[in-house]
Formats: sequence, C-alpha cells, structure tokens
Amino acid sequence: MIRVAINGYGTVGKRVADAVAAQPDMEIVGVSKTRPSFEAYIAKARGFPLYIADLSKRAPFEKLGLPVAGSVAEMLARADVVVDATPGGVGKENKPLYEKTGVKAIFQGGEDHEVAGFSFCSDCNYRMAMGRQFVRVVSCNTTGLCRIINTLDKEYGIAKVRAVMVRRASDPGEVKKGPVDAVVLDPVTVPSHHGPDVQTVLPHIPISTMAMIVPTTFMHMHAVQVDLKKDGKKERILELIRGHPRMGLVLGGTGIKSTAELKEYALDLGRPRGDLWESCIFADSIAVQGKDVSFFQAIHQEADIVVENVDAIRAMVGSVKDPGESIRMTNEALHFVAI
Amino acid sequence: MIRVAINGYGTVGKRVADAVAAQPDMEIVGVSKTRPSFEAYIAKARGFPLYIADLSKRAPFEKLGLPVAGSVAEMLARADVVVDATPGGVGKENKPLYEKTGVKAIFQGGEDHEVAGFSFCSDCNYRMAMGRQFVRVVSCNTTGLCRIINTLDKEYGIAKVRAVMVRRASDPGEVKKGPVDAVVLDPVTVPSHHGPDVQTVLPHIPISTMAMIVPTTFMHMHAVQVDLKKDGKKERILELIRGHPRMGLVLGGTGIKSTAELKEYALDLGRPRGDLWESCIFADSIAVQGKDVSFFQAIHQEADIVVENVDAIRAMVGSVKDPGESIRMTNEALHFVAI
Repeated sequence: MIRVAINGYGTVGKRVADAVAAQPDMEIVGVSKTRPSFEAYIAKARGFPLYIADLSKRAPFEKLGLPVAGSVAEMLARADVVVDATPGGVGKENKPLYEKTGVKAIFQGGEDHEVAGFSFCSDCNYRMAMGRQFVRVVSCNTTGLCRIINTLDKEYGIAKVRAVMVRRASDPGEVKKGPVDAVVLDPVTVPSHHGPDVQTVLPHIPISTMAMIVPTTFMHMHAVQVDLKKDGKKERILELIRGHPRMGLVLGGTGIKSTAELKEYALDLGRPRGDLWESCIFADSIAVQGKDVSFFQAIHQEADIVVENVDAIRAMVGSVKDPGESIRMTNEALHFVAI
Repeated sequence: MIRVAINGYGTVGKRVADAVAAQPDMEIVGVSKTRPSFEAYIAKARGFPLYIADLSKRAPFEKLGLPVAGSVAEMLARADVVVDATPGGVGKENKPLYEKTGVKAIFQGGEDHEVAGFSFCSDCNYRMAMGRQFVRVVSCNTTGLCRIINTLDKEYGIAKVRAVMVRRASDPGEVKKGPVDAVVLDPVTVPSHHGPDVQTVLPHIPISTMAMIVPTTFMHMHAVQVDLKKDGKKERILELIRGHPRMGLVLGGTGIKSTAELKEYALDLGRPRGDLWESCIFADSIAVQGKDVSFFQAIHQEADIVVENVDAIRAMVGSVKDPGESIRMTNEALHFVAI
C-alpha cells in the first residue's frame, strides 16, 4: 500500500483524499488543515487523521471536537508521498520541509513549473515522472488542453493551437470572490499563462491562449481552434474522444448547452460532489474544415486534476509502469466512466 | 431637415432618437410604443410625439398621462426615414407597411440580412447604401468586428479571422433573462452567426466565430485572432485604431481590465447613459507575432450601432455623399471623441 498524506485539505485536497482512499493500492495516512472549517469535520467523518502545521494552535480544533493527530512534520514521516494541495504559492514554501524529510511531493498547477522542475499530465508524460521526488500536476485548464491537444497531435500533428479560456470567477464555496457583473480580462495581455503552461508538458506545440473571468462558479469553458498538419475528419475525432479514458462527449440529444446543465447532469449521475473528472467536449461543436478544427470543451476546475494526482502518485512510486494501467485503475476505483 | 420616425422606443430606439435629435440636419417626428412603460415617460419628457400601432389601445396610455399623437401609419406618413428598432423578427413583419407607405426604413441586426437585402456598416460600405429604401444596420457584435477587420484588411490584407464572442446575458434592464450562474454556448455549433454576418458586409473575409453567453449585463467581450497577409506592427496598429473615429484604445494606465470598469469610466466621462459608441480595444492586449495579431475588444451592445443608424439615415437620403463627413457630423453632434 502506498501511504499518502494530503497537505491542505480544501477544494482539491479533500477530493484527492477521497480518490486516493478509493484506490486498492493506496491509503490516506493523514490530512492537514491550518484552521478549523467545515472541511475539518468532513475529514473527521471520513476517518482521516487530522494534522496541523503548528501544534500550538491545536486548542481551537479540540474545542470543536476535532482531534488533532499531530504535526504536519509527523504526518510526512508516515507517508511515501504527500499531495501538496495548499493555496497557490504556498507549495513552494513547503518544499524545503519535503526536501528535509525526503518524502515524495506532488504540487498543484498554482505553483510555477520550477517548483518541481517537471509538469505532469498522465496522458502525455506519465513515464517521465517515474522515480521523481517532485512532480507538479498542471492546472485544470492546462490539463484539459493537454489531453485533447496530445490526442489530436498524435493522430494528425498540430501546426498551431488558439484557445480562449472563459474562466469561472470562483469555486462555488468561495463567497468572498468576484466579479458580480463584469467580464474581467485575466490578464489583459496576450498570451495568458495557459499557452506556456501547456508547453511545460508538450514543449513542441505552438499555442496562443487568451483568458477572461466571468461571474459564474461551475466550470471553465474553452473555445479551441486547432490547425492540424493534415486534413481532419469529424467522425475520427469523435472516435478518438470516445476512446479516451479522460475525455467525454456532451451529446446533442441531452439538450445540454451550458456548464450549469452539465453539472446538474453529473449530480444526477451520482458522481461524488457532482465531479466531472473528464474534459467535457460538446460533440455538436466539433467543426472540421480541412485542417481547421474548432470545438468547445467545459472543464470542471475542482475535478479534472484529481485523477491526475492519483496517477502521479503511482508514477513517482514506480509501482505501475504503464500509464494506461494506472489510468484504468484510477478510473475503475472511482467507478468513473466518461459521459 | 431629414424627418425621422422611430418605430419601437426601447433600448435601441430611445438611443437612436436622442442621437438623431442631436444632429443639425435631422429631427424626430415621432416615436412608437406598443404599451406604456418607463420609456414612454422618457419620450414625453424629451418632447417626442408618441404614436401607437393600434389606436384602440390608447386608453392605457392616456390614463397614465401619456398623450398619444396618432397611429404608427400616421407617424410614417410624416417621416422620410423610419428606424425600425422593434425586437428581432418584428421588423420583418413591419416591412409590408413600409413598402406600402414608401418610407425609407432601417432595420436592426436582429433581422436577417434578407429583410433589407443590404447590410450596413458606415466605415465599410456607406456609399453602397445611398438611395436605398431598405438598409439593415448589422448587430453590435458584427459592427465591432467589421470596424477592426476592415481597418486591418485595408492595411495588411486578411488571410483569416478567428473570433470568440463572450456575450452579456441581457441588457441591464432586462430583469427576466438569465443565466444566473452558467456559461451558455450560443449556439453549441460552430460557427456562430457572427462570422457569416460579417460577410454580409465584407464578403471576401474568411472568418470563423464561436459565441457564448455569460451572466453579466454591461458589455460583450471579443477575443480576436487575425492572420494578416503581411507582417503586422503593433505601433502601426495602435496608430490605425487611434486614427479611427469609431474605435478607441483602453490604455493600460487607466487600470481598466473589465467591462464593468469601462462602463463606470464612460459614466464618469459624462457620456449619455454611459454609452460607448466606439469599439473599445485594450491597447495592452494587442499582440503581434509576424502575421498573427491577437487582441481583446469590448463592445457596448446598446450603443455602437446607434451612431451607425444615424449615418445610415444620411446615406439613404443621399444628403451627404462622403462617409467620413457623415461620421464626423454624427460624432460632433454627440460630442463623441473616442476614448
């Protein structure tokens, strides 16, 4: 059993913890919080030992009936791999501690590529992560881009990608964030960070990205336009997506035209937290004209990177050599069949 | 004086009425409403005679102290040109009445191209509108695309345009519309109607567009990526925009990164209703790499077509032959200096 610690039990951490706990070859040795919150109650309900960075702050937890198992350093000592799911930029501050303890650590896409020196997407470069101490799982948007770009690149070759990211303003629970009524350029300048970030995984892909933030919480929406090196065929592209374990097709017959309907559908399916681990590509949006391919895909910001973290654990530990086998194990343990 | 009637005194009609009333060579002979609303009170306050389609429905108006000057047919008889600013699709139903009375009529972008057989953008094809009985002013988004595309095309030639339109959900006053929390594809299929609509004005431009609706009210945002036929230069493109009477540059120094800040700025400037008649191109977003040009532009859905309607009136009547002269007159009467 691979012993996994989750440093930062929030939006991403709690999801990765559940996904890890569901795997036959992994167990959660502990999760960490800096202060009490509803998530700390969830950790207790799940039976995950709760660790805190600063033991002098254990009183507020215990007063609320939340037992503290020890310090984060003690948690790390019990783990083979720690998933750092702290807010963007904090992972970098935690790195010296991981170096000191020698624990393998996975950072999230909120950190710079340099924090790990290696950026991961199971589909694209699983084998290159094998044996590494530090790996960064790229952000939700970059993961979504990498999956489809790599798939089209392997089939046709890619001359250029142009993608516009329309980002949700906040995760549903982040009540302090905006905007309420505005489209905010994020950033004003072109390209957004997503293009260069895709190139940390797929360095040979010419890509230009633009991004903005809009007042919604459910999912990101990508408008993607790809120039292939050969003529594309819609039927073949649908087939490639259908055959991919981490991409799903939103079919016209469902009547789904928006992120909100898609999330409602995921909840109806009984997915935990309504999570959409797959890239959700709108089948009817796929337009092929010679070498030009356009489509919309919705990306669930809280979910698509969860399954990537699970695969990254296996790659780093080296327990499963074949990426397809790890992806299959991860999906199967979550009863994840692409929509 | 050119006598102008406004059929449909709503979001667009009330703006065109004010813009027409401000011109030295035009007067408003009347505006029409189908039922009482706050806009009917505005018409009264402005001194615009109020006409209604069905005189049997005059009682609800008069009960509210809103005098009815007569029927729409009577209004048309007093006009040289009618601006049809009724909801999308209603213009087509009104056309037989305009044909019967022989009045020149301007339709809005909510109608199909075929209703007038000629689609107008002052910048692109003013001279071709001269003497016509029917003209359609293209929609706000198409107007915004045509202005910059035509400008870049004249300078460099255009190989291809790819544009993603992130549309506001509703005008600020339309309280019955959504979405509240979703990104809605509009439509799911590619291309959206904007590409073909641009081609009604600029038939030789290869263009592919994608569109979605987001929960905001202020403005549309376009992410535009253009392949020029020759290498572009950012300084030259800035110069072209600066020199254009209907495009403005949002400068980095203003700190404006969103539609909401832009609208607030327009209100601070003292613009009537905070209207932005110009395409608002974010200077810092303009990225030029060889023949590739990318930029963001914000389009005020309620405003950019207002000045186009005024120019269309002059072109159809034939009172001003030179497009530049009409544009100058329109802008000057509105004290409109591009931001």
